[in-house]
Amino acid sequence: MIEISSEYAESVAQRVMERIEALAKISSDTNAMTRVYLSKEHKQTNIQVEAWMREIGMHVWQDEVGNICGRYEGVDAQAPAILLGSHLDTVRNAGKYDGILGVLTALEVVAFLHHHNYRLPVAIEVIGFADEEGTRFDVTLLGSKALTGQWEKDWLERKDREGVSIAQALEAFGLDPKNIMQAQRKKEEILAYLELHIEQGPCLENDHLALGVVTAINGARRLMCQFKGHAGHAGTVPMQHRKDALVAAAKWIVAIDDLIQKEDPNLVATVGYLENKPNAVNVISGHVTLSLDIRGPEDTKIDQALKKILDKANEIANDNAMSFESDEFYRIQAIACDQSLQDRFAYGVSQVQSTTKYLPSGAGHDAIAIATRWPVGMLFVRCEKGISHHPAESMTQHDAKLAIQAYIHTVLTWVDM
Amino acid sequence: MIEISSEYAESVAQRVMERIEALAKISSDTNAMTRVYLSKEHKQTNIQVEAWMREIGMHVWQDEVGNICGRYEGVDAQAPAILLGSHLDTVRNAGKYDGILGVLTALEVVAFLHHHNYRLPVAIEVIGFADEEGTRFDVTLLGSKALTGQWEKDWLERKDREGVSIAQALEAFGLDPKNIMQAQRKKEEILAYLELHIEQGPCLENDHLALGVVTAINGARRLMCQFKGHAGHAGTVPMQHRKDALVAAAKWIVAIDDLIQKEDPNLVATVGYLENKPNAVNVISGHVTLSLDIRGPEDTKIDQALKKILDKANEIANDNAMSFESDEFYRIQAIACDQSLQDRFAYGVSQVQSTTKYLPSGAGHDAIAIATRWPVGMLFVRCEKGISHHPAESMTQHDAKLAIQAYIHTVLTWVDM
Repeated sequence: MIEISSEYAESVAQRVMERIEALAKISSDTNAMTRVYLSKEHKQTNIQVEAWMREIGMHVWQDEVGNICGRYEGVDAQAPAILLGSHLDTVRNAGKYDGILGVLTALEVVAFLHHHNYRLPVAIEVIGFADEEGTRFDVTLLGSKALTGQWEKDWLERKDREGVSIAQALEAFGLDPKNIMQAQRKKEEILAYLELHIEQGPCLENDHLALGVVTAINGARRLMCQFKGHAGHAGTVPMQHRKDALVAAAKWIVAIDDLIQKEDPNLVATVGYLENKPNAVNVISGHVTLSLDIRGPEDTKIDQALKKILDKANEIANDNAMSFESDEFYRIQAIACDQSLQDRFAYGVSQVQSTTKYLPSGAGHDAIAIATRWPVGMLFVRCEKGISHHPAESMTQHDAKLAIQAYIHTVLTWVDM
Repeated sequence: MIEISSEYAESVAQRVMERIEALAKISSDTNAMTRVYLSKEHKQTNIQVEAWMREIGMHVWQDEVGNICGRYEGVDAQAPAILLGSHLDTVRNAGKYDGILGVLTALEVVAFLHHHNYRLPVAIEVIGFADEEGTRFDVTLLGSKALTGQWEKDWLERKDREGVSIAQALEAFGLDPKNIMQAQRKKEEILAYLELHIEQGPCLENDHLALGVVTAINGARRLMCQFKGHAGHAGTVPMQHRKDALVAAAKWIVAIDDLIQKEDPNLVATVGYLENKPNAVNVISGHVTLSLDIRGPEDTKIDQALKKILDKANEIANDNAMSFESDEFYRIQAIACDQSLQDRFAYGVSQVQSTTKYLPSGAGHDAIAIATRWPVGMLFVRCEKGISHHPAESMTQHDAKLAIQAYIHTVLTWVDM
């Protein structure tokens, strides 16, 4: 087996950090980092990544949806590929590492093989997805959904804030909207999908670990809920006669927090949105609208907890002769990471870190779409304070070095496929 | 003692209800009832009330702030007066009884004496205050503050939404702003102030009583408060690592409700305003701004409860490593009703109702301003479901009849002053 010297790992980690800085400059906002689907910054990024791919002996193409793709052949040119990648687009006012790190570290895996003029029994493809965040057209995972044949026809008509449709934007980008379905890849062409990503949460940092193997991408349910009570005069209605919708909502928020903390450490539930009416200092609340976002790595556990939470809401409403309503407006199933891919990543991590930490992903990733067609595995890298989708997003070169070493070790497990 | 026959009381109760309907038509909005200070509707109302006063043998004048005033002399023309009244202005989209009822029932006390050609050892003055609600210029009790010499100089420069100052509005109304301080009355001219008003709360209705004697007008404190935590990704931050400002605020709202319910049945506390940031379904709350309104008939009890509530907020913030801040932006002392006036009202009520109910007033009234110069007493009349400041405000002719009878019996106690 070829070895990864510490000096080599150090130098490529530095290269990755430099490339992250270089890509961070390709932004549509001058004071913030924003790079959206089918923008000129997207084109400029694809051109840059293409150049880096060519330098390490890859065959490169841009697919019909705008993903940038490269292939490093295996021993046999007809061999199926393992697909490595992540996304190159960003949210508005983004951090520099989200997505990008996964593409640049995948390139280092290929660069290592190319450096040693080494070929595996499988081909390696690297993909930089064109749209994961859904920033421009308010629909996420456009790149990976096109790759897996899940592109929906009416998406071509979806418009951005300026009224430009995806079809128009594809044409302006130099792509033909009529060919969009050709972006999909045949099942037999790809064996597995591997994605390295910053954690976007604080778990690894709290455990003082650089790397963690992802067990699942959390499923989620989102509901918009309402408590309706009776607005009234804050001075004249005695406490025992009130039907204060905000007090009911507060009892529920506290109950959700209690219940989820007891239920399962992998479950999270959040009331992120709350609107109070009439929302005046001297008027008892008559109507509260609030959201519930609940996530976890196992659908049955999410649904069990959700039932308890909704039962509690009805109990609070009934106790106070108020009404409670809920409307689930978003549901995504949990995606389990493939066990054998978890084992491969665990092996890779074991080469650089004494503890192998397993954790679910709270955020969504391209792997969600990919899992409909191929087995997926993910590796998480520690980021500072778990901050993401924010300019303060940060990670160290030290962790990048460990991540690249683990990633190369993981891919080298295909030597003996 | 002259008697009040049931037929007489019935007929004047009907007259009061008809006059309420007539005044309700004097509104600046066609679809809602709104009558603000120094408007043409104010002038029209004063003219109507003046006519009713003259019909019952009163000497009538409009004072320098726009209050409409009438005097029914006592046995001795130099006698000091007892002042009866309430306000003729309304909030926007108001009910028909708030304020008006107190003026019209006061006129029926005089009408009864006039009908019997009877004079008391004291004069009776009736006043229709020009502004209690503060609807037009955002400062309340303008009429009663002018009467008690509490008019503040810079109020003349205060402007309404259209940019018209009080000084300009006074001139347009036919009054001279330079004379505003002449609206005040000498202490020795008036013995006591009596005000009849709808309860604007549900207590009398809940006790199946038409009338109640007011013990005090609640003092109040208003604070704007903030919990600051850490915004974060709703999917990636485990429950135990969160600093969710909305969860902290919810714990506090629940604690306030518990604490006040245990503390004293006369205390009320309300969180009526809440603003959550960033207020997105998938983001943990980082910052909640919320109001606290606390009221009660005794200042020491308000302040004791407020201290406990703020201690609790700091405890919640400390437990979760968050910050809590509060800023008191409004404070009004509690006003005790004069004991001898309570006794007189209690006597009046005892003539028509077997139980004498005592209760504090949760809302503010002209009596707050009057109490700085003269003893005040108030009588509350049941209103439907406690609804006020709303078109659904309602009360029965039956209760109006009992109220008028009790009011006349109360004033007749001055026969033997």
